[in-house]
Amino acid sequence: MKSSTQQAIEITKANESKIGQVDFENLTFGNIFTDHMFVCDFIDGKWQTPKITPYAPLTLDPSARVFHYGQAVFEGMKAYKDDNGDTFLFRPDENFKRINKSAARLAMPEFPENYFFDGLTELLKLDNEWIKPGFGNSLYIRPFVIATQAGVSASEANEYKFMIICSPAQAYYSGDVSVLVAEKFSRSANGGIGYAKAAGNYAAQFYPTNLAKKEGYQQVIWTDADTHEYMEEAGTMNVFFRVNDTLLTAPTSDRILDGITRKSLIDIAKKEGVSVDVRPVKVSEIVAAAKDGSLKEIFGAGTAAVISPVKAFGYQGNHYELEKQENSFASLFKTALMNIQYNKAEDPFNWRHKI
Amino acid sequence: MKSSTQQAIEITKANESKIGQVDFENLTFGNIFTDHMFVCDFIDGKWQTPKITPYAPLTLDPSARVFHYGQAVFEGMKAYKDDNGDTFLFRPDENFKRINKSAARLAMPEFPENYFFDGLTELLKLDNEWIKPGFGNSLYIRPFVIATQAGVSASEANEYKFMIICSPAQAYYSGDVSVLVAEKFSRSANGGIGYAKAAGNYAAQFYPTNLAKKEGYQQVIWTDADTHEYMEEAGTMNVFFRVNDTLLTAPTSDRILDGITRKSLIDIAKKEGVSVDVRPVKVSEIVAAAKDGSLKEIFGAGTAAVISPVKAFGYQGNHYELEKQENSFASLFKTALMNIQYNKAEDPFNWRHKI
Repeated sequence: MKSSTQQAIEITKANESKIGQVDFENLTFGNIFTDHMFVCDFIDGKWQTPKITPYAPLTLDPSARVFHYGQAVFEGMKAYKDDNGDTFLFRPDENFKRINKSAARLAMPEFPENYFFDGLTELLKLDNEWIKPGFGNSLYIRPFVIATQAGVSASEANEYKFMIICSPAQAYYSGDVSVLVAEKFSRSANGGIGYAKAAGNYAAQFYPTNLAKKEGYQQVIWTDADTHEYMEEAGTMNVFFRVNDTLLTAPTSDRILDGITRKSLIDIAKKEGVSVDVRPVKVSEIVAAAKDGSLKEIFGAGTAAVISPVKAFGYQGNHYELEKQENSFASLFKTALMNIQYNKAEDPFNWRHKI
Repeated sequence: MKSSTQQAIEITKANESKIGQVDFENLTFGNIFTDHMFVCDFIDGKWQTPKITPYAPLTLDPSARVFHYGQAVFEGMKAYKDDNGDTFLFRPDENFKRINKSAARLAMPEFPENYFFDGLTELLKLDNEWIKPGFGNSLYIRPFVIATQAGVSASEANEYKFMIICSPAQAYYSGDVSVLVAEKFSRSANGGIGYAKAAGNYAAQFYPTNLAKKEGYQQVIWTDADTHEYMEEAGTMNVFFRVNDTLLTAPTSDRILDGITRKSLIDIAKKEGVSVDVRPVKVSEIVAAAKDGSLKEIFGAGTAAVISPVKAFGYQGNHYELEKQENSFASLFKTALMNIQYNKAEDPFNWRHKI
């Protein structure tokens, strides 16, 4: 693919596949993993020989840095199979660049491009049967890096483990969600690590999300930590607002994840002739638009869910329902994006990456 | 101790001790661990039978939540031995309360008080030889909780592991440090998790600290994320400023850790008749005080280092050196605090906790 490995991947195949035990019609997201995993250790200042091994538990010292100081970054990507049985990734270059951007912010070593792509390719060849054809089916791919060095001194580790594990997936969300706009809690600071796909960013969200659930909402729309006046992200996704026929979304920043689905949707929307306004989005303007009827849609965008339509939002004790739209942007863009992902449409942006 | 265990701790002793291999005169912080560890699993909605076992690696699924979504909190505490060979903890109630406060913010289950204290007591009895007498020697104790549930769905885990591991320690810092006042990076947001002793808060600090190191500083003084106008924490410690004979430190908040050393120092200072002003501390006032000579001292306060004197700070490209003080507050308070910790002085605050 990208380049030849300097060092061949050591492959140890599983003795037998677990695939026969899996009910592919009734998958819950992220609970079942394929037969193999990719592992590469960073020791003595360099990445060692990459390996593919049977999927197996990790053994780590209780003092491993990841448990204490949270150096852990990850990516989420998917492999899709078309009707011919060919396998595709979607913009994997972007995942590769982002995991290294996240790693750099957490003082972790960057991973070599050829190891990343060769590892992915070999892993997907070995576990290819786990990628089921059919629109909506996919193999969710989780590259991640953790600090493995033993010792509870509060500094960056000098030993890491880069891994890729894979989980067969159907659609992520079962229906439209209601979201609560954050008035007190926030997910990231200016000058912080909100833009990184860092494990610690996620742990911080569960408690406020649970509070929102108690009020009948499934997710939180995060607002800026300074003023809570601007819409930033929705749950673990980027968020879009359709006001009349214009699509609004916040610009990326050091607080906001540079989502691959987000930027792909912006390109698709523009190509479809939809006006896209990437600028800070005030909570007050969305509330006003909800009141005067010009707010047509809200949706989250991310790899796992692709697009997650929002049917209602809460803010300052008020509840705003959105009318169901015919020919919604959410539905239009989701189909357009998935058609590219599943090789059912032209790929004018050159996003598909055949394995 | 606090209360009797509902459930006895299952104890498995190590066959032989590693203590003979340890050079107690040349310890680096947090690298060597004692013979035993305390482990308690949260499964099926409750904490299972607590165990003390030989110190050993953990086995976790590669999809364990801690690796992906960062649910991990910890505490730092120390055990001290006096000249009679009696062992003491310092304000362990505060550590117990804080780890549960941290856990709650990360949507993790709270740990039972009796398990915490009984586990500590039994562990310190078993590994008592590892606590060396002598002023400055201690056993650093690291309680921590991690999410162990397998699966990469972005929600809080339903399985956790609470552990206590212990590492013999000498003094943490070797000398006075120079610190750089943060102008761009920050460690926590309003409405975030800065007050929690969460793993993710630490990973975020290493990269900015490395940038500071390139400029000749060892640590960063974190400022507020909104304006960078206020001093908040120093590295992984709380920070104090002595202007003339008044001690200044920021109030705790949702961004600032409620440090046990911090609040103990405030009490000691007040008892010594020193004026303590707990209020937001402007960077500009500290710079002005450095210029006019009224800034006498800066020091960090935390369990690992106790007090870490600052000899210089950098801000906006300028470097400010502090004059060495005779009878410094740092030295006075450190001695007073350690005298209480090591049972060399009265304990008017009832902070010592005999094992």
